[in-house]
This record gives sequence, C-alpha cells and structure tokens, in this order.
Amino acid sequence: MALERVESIPSLAPRPADSHKGRFGSILVVAGSRGMAGAAALAGASALRSGAGLVRVATAAEVNATVASFEPSYMTYPLPCDEEGVISFRSSQGVLERLMEKVDVVAVGPGLGQSDDVRALVRWLITSAGKTLVLDADALNALDGDVSVFGGLTQPAVVTPHPGEFARLVGVSVDRIQGDRENQAASLASRFGHLVVVLKGNGTVVTDGSRIYVNRTGNPGMATGGAGDALTGVVAALLGQKLSPFQAAQLGVYVHGLAGDIARDQNGEIGLIAGDVVDALPDAFDHVVQNQELHDIGLTP
Amino acid sequence: MALERVESIPSLAPRPADSHKGRFGSILVVAGSRGMAGAAALAGASALRSGAGLVRVATAAEVNATVASFEPSYMTYPLPCDEEGVISFRSSQGVLERLMEKVDVVAVGPGLGQSDDVRALVRWLITSAGKTLVLDADALNALDGDVSVFGGLTQPAVVTPHPGEFARLVGVSVDRIQGDRENQAASLASRFGHLVVVLKGNGTVVTDGSRIYVNRTGNPGMATGGAGDALTGVVAALLGQKLSPFQAAQLGVYVHGLAGDIARDQNGEIGLIAGDVVDALPDAFDHVVQNQELHDIGLTP
Amino acid sequence: MALERVESIPSLAPRPADSHKGRFGSILVVAGSRGMAGAAALAGASALRSGAGLVRVATAAEVNATVASFEPSYMTYPLPCDEEGVISFRSSQGVLERLMEKVDVVAVGPGLGQSDDVRALVRWLITSAGKTLVLDADALNALDGDVSVFGGLTQPAVVTPHPGEFARLVGVSVDRIQGDRENQAASLASRFGHLVVVLKGNGTVVTDGSRIYVNRTGNPGMATGGAGDALTGVVAALLGQKLSPFQAAQLGVYVHGLAGDIARDQNGEIGLIAGDVVDALPDAFDHVVQNQELHDIGLTP
Amino acid sequence: MALERVESIPSLAPRPADSHKGRFGSILVVAGSRGMAGAAALAGASALRSGAGLVRVATAAEVNATVASFEPSYMTYPLPCDEEGVISFRSSQGVLERLMEKVDVVAVGPGLGQSDDVRALVRWLITSAGKTLVLDADALNALDGDVSVFGGLTQPAVVTPHPGEFARLVGVSVDRIQGDRENQAASLASRFGHLVVVLKGNGTVVTDGSRIYVNRTGNPGMATGGAGDALTGVVAALLGQKLSPFQAAQLGVYVHGLAGDIARDQNGEIGLIAGDVVDALPDAFDHVVQNQELHDIGLTP
Repeated sequence: MALERVESIPSLAPRPADSHKGRFGSILVVAGSRGMAGAAALAGASALRSGAGLVRVATAAEVNATVASFEPSYMTYPLPCDEEGVISFRSSQGVLERLMEKVDVVAVGPGLGQSDDVRALVRWLITSAGKTLVLDADALNALDGDVSVFGGLTQPAVVTPHPGEFARLVGVSVDRIQGDRENQAASLASRFGHLVVVLKGNGTVVTDGSRIYVNRTGNPGMATGGAGDALTGVVAALLGQKLSPFQAAQLGVYVHGLAGDIARDQNGEIGLIAGDVVDALPDAFDHVVQNQELHDIGLTP
Repeated sequence: MALERVESIPSLAPRPADSHKGRFGSILVVAGSRGMAGAAALAGASALRSGAGLVRVATAAEVNATVASFEPSYMTYPLPCDEEGVISFRSSQGVLERLMEKVDVVAVGPGLGQSDDVRALVRWLITSAGKTLVLDADALNALDGDVSVFGGLTQPAVVTPHPGEFARLVGVSVDRIQGDRENQAASLASRFGHLVVVLKGNGTVVTDGSRIYVNRTGNPGMATGGAGDALTGVVAALLGQKLSPFQAAQLGVYVHGLAGDIARDQNGEIGLIAGDVVDALPDAFDHVVQNQELHDIGLTP
Repeated sequence: MALERVESIPSLAPRPADSHKGRFGSILVVAGSRGMAGAAALAGASALRSGAGLVRVATAAEVNATVASFEPSYMTYPLPCDEEGVISFRSSQGVLERLMEKVDVVAVGPGLGQSDDVRALVRWLITSAGKTLVLDADALNALDGDVSVFGGLTQPAVVTPHPGEFARLVGVSVDRIQGDRENQAASLASRFGHLVVVLKGNGTVVTDGSRIYVNRTGNPGMATGGAGDALTGVVAALLGQKLSPFQAAQLGVYVHGLAGDIARDQNGEIGLIAGDVVDALPDAFDHVVQNQELHDIGLTP
Repeated sequence: MALERVESIPSLAPRPADSHKGRFGSILVVAGSRGMAGAAALAGASALRSGAGLVRVATAAEVNATVASFEPSYMTYPLPCDEEGVISFRSSQGVLERLMEKVDVVAVGPGLGQSDDVRALVRWLITSAGKTLVLDADALNALDGDVSVFGGLTQPAVVTPHPGEFARLVGVSVDRIQGDRENQAASLASRFGHLVVVLKGNGTVVTDGSRIYVNRTGNPGMATGGAGDALTGVVAALLGQKLSPFQAAQLGVYVHGLAGDIARDQNGEIGLIAGDVVDALPDAFDHVVQNQELHDIGLTP
C-alpha cells in the first residue's frame, strides 16, 4: 500500500461579500442522552465556531432543554427516548427523515449512549440517510466491530475513533493499533470507497486509504472529557463548507489541535477543559486564514 | 419613484441625568418555540444591549425556562402552546392583550414556528394590537405572501426579511429580488403608509418608500444562525427610544453590522457566532455615540 | 426637621486572617415568580459579589431551577406557589420560619409578583420575622400605601423605592415626590424608629430621618431592568457584614452607582445591562477599600 | 506524637505526549440535593479544572438538569431522591455499584443534604465501595461523630472538614479545636491507617498522623459559600492523577488557596465568589508547574 504523504494544510476560501448562511452548510448533530447533554452541546457549539451557517442538534428529549441552554445560536430537536434517556430510533425516524431534507452534513455520536435502537439509528444513517457523515464515539461503538456496513455508504463519511474505539471497530488490540497507527488507519480506509479515517491520539492520523496526514498540533492537556466531541463538530462544519472529506478531516484535526494549543498557552495543560478548546477555535481559524493569506502573497511564515 | 438617498447615520440623544427606565421604552419580544428558545433569547438580549429600558419576552411555555436561563435582566411570559411547541394564539390572546397595555414596541418572529395560529397571531398584531412593530422571520412567513394586511396598520411597522423571506412575501423570485434590491424594497414600502422595509443581505437596504439607505457595515462572518434575531431586538429597542421608524431601522442595521465587524476583528469571520454580535453591541453603540459627539463639536472623523 | 448632612462614605473593616463565612452574614433573598426568575438571581448574585458569607434564595418553586442555574454559589429554596407562579405564603410559612433561624438579613421584593398572599408574606416579614430587612419593588407595592405596618418593626429595615414606588407608598404624586426628594424621604423615615429610606433616582437619597446622604455615583445607563434588583442584594450583604442600616444603605448606593459607572466606562451607557453592574461590584468595592486605606494613612485621593 | 513537618509542595509529573484521558483519572462526585445543585457543579468543575481526565457527577435526579447546565464537560448521573430532594441510597445503590467499576476516585459531600439514607450512603462508600475517597461537608456530618467507621477503610480517604465539621466529627468544641489545630488533626488521622485529615481555616492543616503540612496560601475573601466545594474537586482530581493521598491533599489546599489569591488580586476580597476560585485554578496550577520547572533546573523562585 503506497500512501501519499500530505504535509500542507488546506484552507477555506475567503467568504464572498454577498454570503448568506445557506452557503456555509446546514449541519445536523445527532448526540446526547441522559447525563450526556454536554457532549451534544460541545459538538454543536464547535460546529458554530467552525463557520457552519446553521446548526441543528437532535438529542434525547429528556436532555433537550439542557442542550438548548448552552448556546442560543443552534436549534434543537427533542427526539423521543427510551426509559434510559437514550434516543429511540423507531419513534424518531420520521422526524429524522424530515430533518434530512434540511441538512447537508450529519455528525453523530457524542454522548449518544448505547442500545439496540442506537445501533439501528447509526446503520440507517450510514446506509439510508444519503448525507455526508461524521461518526464518532458511541456511533462507532454501535457498529460492534462490524465495519462492513461502510460498504453501504453512498456519501462520504469521516470516522474519528480514539485508539480504544478503533480497536473495537476492527477487532484488534489497542497495543497493536498503537504500534502501527498509520497502516492500521489506512488499511481500514482503503477498504471502503467513501471513508476517511481519523485515528486520534498523539499524532492524529488522517487517511482516505491513499493519502495520509499525521497531525502535529495539540497537547496532552487535551486528554480531557469532551475534547473529542469538539472535533466532531469542527469536521462537520468544514464538510458543510465544501472541503473534500479528506481535507475537512485534515484541517479539522489541525485546527482542533491548534485551538488546544492556544488554550494551553492561556490556561496551562492541567487546567485545560474541552470548553476552552471550543472557545479558542475562532483564534485557531484566524491563524490558519492569516497564514494562508501570507502564503498566497509569497510569504510562508 | 424618486427616492431620497440618505447617507448620514442618525444617533441617539444623550441620556438626561434624571433618566428612569420607563424613558427608554418597554419592549415586548414575541418569539421562540420548541427547539428555538435561543432565537427568542438573542432578540431579547439584543434589545437590552441596545438601550431598551425594559424587555419582556413572551414565548412558548414549553421553552420559557430555557429562554429565561439565558439572561436575568428580561422578564418572560410563558404562553400556552400546541402539541408542536408553538404558541397557541387562541389560548394566549388574553395574556397578550394585557401585555399590550404595558409595552411600547412589539418585536415578533424569531423562532416563532409556523401554524395557523401563528398566522392569526401575526395578523392580530398587525391590525389590532395598536403598537409599533418589528416583524421578522416566521412572522413574515406567516403572511403567506399576502402583504395586503399591512394596509391595516395603525402604527408604524419595520419588516426585516432576508432575500428569501422577501421573495416569499412579494411572490417574486430571489434572483429577481437580488437583481433590483433597492427598487424591490422601496416598491413594497411605498404601498403602505406605515411600513419601513429592511431588505437584508450584502448592503442591507432600508426604505420607507420615499427615502432609501444602503448599509455598508457588516461582513460575511455574520452569515450564521441567529444573527438576524439580534437585528430584530436592536431595531425594537431603538423604536422604544423614540427614533422614527426609518431612523430606528437605519441606525439598527448600521450598529448591528458594526457590532458584527467588531466581533469579526476579535474572532475572525469563520468563528463568529450570533452571540458575539450581541456582545459587541455596546462597543458599537459607543462608537456611534462618540462619533456623534465629535460631529457635534465640528470634528467629523 | 433639621437633617444632618452626611458626606463621607463608610467602609468595611479589613477582614481578619482567620475569617470564616459565618462572619460575613447569612443572607436570605425572597424573590422571583413566574417569568421573573432573573430578578431573584440578580439580587442573590449581587449579595455574593458584595461580600456576603452565605446567600440563600427562596423563590417560587416553578422558577427555582432557573434561579439556581444562574449561580452555583448560592443555595435556593423552592417555595410552593399559586397557579400564577407567585409564592404562596400560607404553604411556605413553615419553611420560612425554619429559614429565619439560619439567616441574619432578609431581602424581599425583586420579581415577587403581586397577590393577597404576597401582601401577607411581606407583613409577616415586617412584623414577625424579627430579622433585619431590605424591602424593594413588589414588597413595597404589597403594602398598598399602608406604611403604618412599619410601626411593627422590631429590627431595622431599609426600603429602596424608586419614585413611582415611593409615590404609591406614601400616596403622593410622583411629581411632588421628585420636587422635594430629600424631605419626602426623610419625612417617611422619621415616622418610624427602625426605618432607613433609600429614594432612588438621580441623586439617590438615603435617610434615617435624622441624617441624610445624597449619592453622586451612577449614570443614566443604569435605567435598565434589573439594576434595582442588584442594589437590593448589595445593601443586604452590607447589613450582613454588620454595617449600621444607614451606613449599609449609604455604602450600598454608593458602590452600586460606582459599579454602574465602571460598567459604563467599559460598555457605554446604551449597552449597559444589569448584569454588568453585578459584574463590576468587585472592582467597585476594591476601589472603596483602597481609597479607605489611602485615607487611613493620611492620603485622601 | 512526633510529627514530621513538611514544607515543600509536591508537583505533578509532566504529561507525556501520548497521554489519553484515562491516564488522568476518572472521578465520581456524589453531591447535590434540592436547592444545592451548585455545590455539585462547583466540585465537578473544579475536578475538571484540576486536570481530571473524566468527571462524572452523580446527583439527586431533581437537580440533575441544573447541575448539567453548568458545565458541558462532565457527565451527570441522576439518582432517585426522596421527597425532600435528597439522594435515596436504597434506590441508587445499584447505579452506584455499576459506577464504581468506571471510576478511580469518589468525592462525596458537597450539598448532599442530610437523611438516614445519606448516612447509609456515606458508610457504604467508606466500608464497601473500595475506592479512594474525598469526604467533605454533609458526608462528614452524616457520620454523626462516629469516626470509628474509618476503621473499615480499605482504600485511602481524605477528609476536608472546616472547624465546625471537625468539632462535630470528634465531639470536641470548636474553640478547643481551634486552639490546638495541628494536634487535633493529627490525632484523628493517626487513629486510622488510611486517613488524611485536612482541617480547613486560616493555615489549613494537612496530616496523615505522621507528617504535617500547614498551608499559607489563601485569604479571607475565600470565606464565601462554595469555596469548600471547590477544594473537594481539586483534591479528588489530584488523587486521580496518582499523587499519594497526603500529597494530593497538600497540593490541593496549596493550589486552591493560590487560586483564591489570584482571584483576590483580580476581584478584591469582598467581591470574590467561589466561581472565581474555580476559574483561577488553571493559573494556579500553571504557577506550580512553572516553579517546579525552575526548581528542577536549580532555580528556586
């Protein structure tokens, strides 16, 4: 497997003066369950802070008010849930089908919880929703290691497992994954036409099976609950702004790590929390845009 | 149609030392429904940040607590709602009638949702409430393109459609609207005695049918969910401070865009969200006031 | 009536190194009702920001969660309420009686709403609770102009009406009040042994009937909903820190106005909201303390 | 009793580049009840701000949404509660047992309330949960002065009473405690093999019965509701990062006091509230880490 090694960071095109919010993508985040409202909120807020035009968060009805209270600029959709406070797919399918008509990208997973119904929901999104996807956390756990479902993708999907989730996904030990991160990620991606794999960790790997990028931003202070939820929102927003799946994943992990580094410079590694990463996203994007502009006029900083 | 072109920005009179909150207007925001509490909150908070003396937000009872949790300085009024979480006008009319006795200006629309009852609510506000109005978003959609209802206005109304909403309102394609923004807006305004039209977009047009102002503040980073809700609150607050409807709309779009530019300078275009615009309103108003003071002493900056 | 004119601002004693929170007063705020959770929150947060050791907010059960969501450092007590979302005194008296054993000062009024039961609650606090009181807003309206109840005070009370509330309280027109503010306030205070009157407005008057102080801090930007609620909390906190009622009221209005001036310098007059005043309280207190220290070493700034 | 006097402040090891959140501890906070959601939130947020990898807050179901609304980065677990809004241990034991399998450290007490069931909960955590513990506030009150239960500890426990709680715990007057703080604390600790005692106050004492540390950070502005809840979270987080119980308690009180001093420098003593201490934790940890680095290269600042 000869992988093309990508080093340069893609950027977003300048926004034309006559932009309207439809131009920057309509994102649906499907996330959250009892006790995990925050995961949905972090993903939704990150999508907003990454330039998405419009963000909707569909979440378990039980936690909808809590999700809504975190950020006035996204809309929420309370979905019927089971007695554990987890989204019930059967009762929600109609609402979700109607939502699919309004959105460009679906991000699913943060704080979703686990149930048979969640498994059905994730499989339906992969095989039947017809939308560009970001799959994270419990959406990956929901596959129970059966990656063959990715064969049913009709649109691109970016998966963002950490090593433990990746190990469960492909049925290999974490140690073996960590000992051969690039090939493991590329091997999974290369099996499916529409799949981009983001294997998180120190030196996050981004690969579509033919190209590979190893990220160098980020720091150990980001080893804190919720940091991954933020990445999900960032990548979804970039997909909505019409980057290719590989480039959206690549720029997403770069900017997410850079935001973490900015937050670390302000708060130190120990005190850094996921919300700091979200708050630092604007500065991180600004940094990327300004470097791009310098690059465009011949000054590579 | 000979339109007088207005270039200068109106300002607010200095506040006398013995001011009390009644002097700066009592604003009622009618907004919000299931999943769209944030829209009501953004409009209400923007009215507060634009100098309103007192702000009340009447919203669907289902989301009242969420709306209330965003800002302690406005009051909320939970209105009975239907099973979709949308305000039920029939069950709310009594409360709204009593509220009319307490308020100077009514802003209606952000996150209102759509239903027959919402249509009835909006028509009642236009023809029977007897208050200066700001109509936005779902309040405009509620008219189903029947603008003749504006013939029933007994008090001034400012409408703030984006091009899509304007197109639905007048039954003309978005392309045709965008190709002739000034005349399209002026044409609608000139048909009704009390109407000021704010056609949003790059170079927002403000017109009462005889005068026209084209705004030059703002930036593409403001193409993000909720930015329009903020404008609704700003214009309502300025009406409550006794600017004429045309001047309130003109200063409102100017300051709203300026706040967006200040937010852009701080956060960049990509990371900018609607809440940043609200937060930057005080600085934007301060900028206007200080320039006015320089102007008054003969220094035009 | 020969009134002693007080000009100097009292200060708080330095905090000994071995202080514990019991030393700085236990404050009970009784406030809030349907749609007015924020008023209770602003009063409670202001008490905390003014040095209170412990703050409890007793509020209508219906809005208790909203009040609680604004500030983690106060405790809340949800009181049974009527169908309008207003505290029911009859159902709450037992809880309130037990609370009286835990608190030093009771502040009552912000966003309380109006009902026969609220009238009973306020009269009970004045005549039977045996605590130092701050009475504001709806607690004053609840007296229906019958000030004779203050004859039943066994502990000091500070009342903080704005001119309209004062006019209703004493049955005189607002114009006549405003034309003779100092004498009107002093006249009311002098009728009752334990009463300090704070007549708000431009040049807030503080008087116990024999001494009078006219405040010069503050600005017209503070003519915004909720600013008065903040003052209630400030005065209550200072009473809890063992200033005399006259001094607590005097320092309270001074610091509250100074906080408003600090907020104005940051946000301008137009964009200033009540929350800004609360946020500026620490700086305002610091200013007072530092000037006091300069004064104590012979440098009067 | 010859006590070794410890002066030097321990530090945290640098985080390796390939860290993941599991490395920094999974903390469970058991806290909160009706009206005291904030205490749980302050403890949970402090644990996050002190470097914990993952924080879960188990709280009375009645206040779970409020606790969740304060911070998106921790998870919450709503536990069944009694009619007073206090956690019902009998109905919660199953959930808690399953949670024990996921966590490294349990902090219990802030805002827990009092009931027979709370007493059973605390005893069960001490004798049967098998986890490193931090016991504070109502968890200490729940022992009713029967410290013999600490004989059942199989894992280390840190107790963090203020003098009043300590007095109730050991059945001695506050005056006597305060007159002999070091020996009183050491005497309690020395009776039990796994116990570290943190006796709060001016010069907080930390002792395991053989070593003693007297803290010198902190200031009287921290005598405010909720400051103690923050300490609970800090110590729990440090235990999760594998400091020994004595060192976790020692560094915890040092950093907590330092955060209070940083907050005091920003907000003054009077206006300081508990949330400021939490917000200053990152700076305080950064200060410790940087001094450690200077120390490691031979420069003791």
